[in-house]
Amino acid sequence: MRYELFYWPEIQGRGEFVRLALEEAGADYVDVARRAKGMDAMLRLLGGAQGAPPQFAPPYLRAGKLLIGQTANILAYLGAHHRLAPANEAGRLWTNQLQLTIADFLVEAHDTHHPIGSGLYYEDQQKEAKRRAADFIAGRIPKYLGYFERVLARNQAGDKYLVGARLTYVDLSLFQMVDGLRYGFPHAMARIEKKHPRVTALHGRVAARPRIAAYLASKHRIAFNQMGIFRHYKELDR
Amino acid sequence: MRYELFYWPEIQGRGEFVRLALEEAGADYVDVARRAKGMDAMLRLLGGAQGAPPQFAPPYLRAGKLLIGQTANILAYLGAHHRLAPANEAGRLWTNQLQLTIADFLVEAHDTHHPIGSGLYYEDQQKEAKRRAADFIAGRIPKYLGYFERVLARNQAGDKYLVGARLTYVDLSLFQMVDGLRYGFPHAMARIEKKHPRVTALHGRVAARPRIAAYLASKHRIAFNQMGIFRHYKELDR
Repeated sequence: MRYELFYWPEIQGRGEFVRLALEEAGADYVDVARRAKGMDAMLRLLGGAQGAPPQFAPPYLRAGKLLIGQTANILAYLGAHHRLAPANEAGRLWTNQLQLTIADFLVEAHDTHHPIGSGLYYEDQQKEAKRRAADFIAGRIPKYLGYFERVLARNQAGDKYLVGARLTYVDLSLFQMVDGLRYGFPHAMARIEKKHPRVTALHGRVAARPRIAAYLASKHRIAFNQMGIFRHYKELDR
Repeated sequence: MRYELFYWPEIQGRGEFVRLALEEAGADYVDVARRAKGMDAMLRLLGGAQGAPPQFAPPYLRAGKLLIGQTANILAYLGAHHRLAPANEAGRLWTNQLQLTIADFLVEAHDTHHPIGSGLYYEDQQKEAKRRAADFIAGRIPKYLGYFERVLARNQAGDKYLVGARLTYVDLSLFQMVDGLRYGFPHAMARIEKKHPRVTALHGRVAARPRIAAYLASKHRIAFNQMGIFRHYKELDR
């Protein structure tokens, strides 16, 4: 089956968490909106095309007859179908729990540059962004990375992966969080990562996986940029 | 099996979404932190008690040997075990997708009064809160309620419930969102709800279910208050 991924074509954004899972799985997929007229197809679904469940926002994934939205939901599906999550209920729930914590983390990363409204320009909320980013760096990044460090340290199967003894989709997602935060907050992350060696090691371990490494080096990997969720504004990185 | 729910004892917060599902299911549960010494038990788990998976934040639910965190994850579990969600994969994913959209909506509701940092006082971010709340009322509430109105209108089994022809946990959650928004933004909601009659009708339908009605009238239902996720600040409601 060829999957169809629908996501904004010019940013990594939430779509990237899905792309990483598809790449690691070696799945056959089309990144629809990056093809000619693909954007129209994506917007038709967003506008509520007949016969398809209404979507609130990209990404959504067409998988045969299913149209699946919400990043963590898509990943739960891919995890089950591509052995990127444990098959038993306890492992499945735990993987999903960690993924939802990453989703919370991601919203907070986004809101550092858009604390007032996602429909407003950064320049129109720059003052508020400075305050929010300072709080994010001082309190929130350490809290989240500290949590994942603890999850790794306490994993009874070892500290190489977040869940059990093999890679799951949430390892890919934590890789992406660290990668994005390094882009957005290089100074802060250089400092904070020192206290979270297992998280840093996981990032390297994921980046070195053959399929992920090939993907990251390819033109399919959109570069981080100032339109995405992770953005680098010098004044926000302390 | 008697469930143990761990959540802050003085607010509805995220725990309320779980309570509503437990109540509708007629499940046997203890609201641990509202009992003597229960708060200690909750904080021990939050601090990383040995032998239990590290939790990032309440709520978490003990279900036999499982300790399940993240609201949407707990609800997915309860949905599967108490017939509060479809049993088939497509229905399960769709219910979870809608719940995750509610989770996004809830974060935005919270951030109207805490746009800069959840660790800071409201009074120290009141100016920013006014801007964020204005954007939330003008753009975000209508966008989210419009989405759920469309989901109801497009449900092929009728517009009484969000998923299929019977109640699921996401109906309970949408009830709670509307209830909280009415508390926080009574003027704005009186106006906005007029355009979303199906959402309003769903709220009433849920409130009238025997177990939910009994729960809402009981002392177990914590009243909305100024410590919770939904707060009423006159200056934020236009």
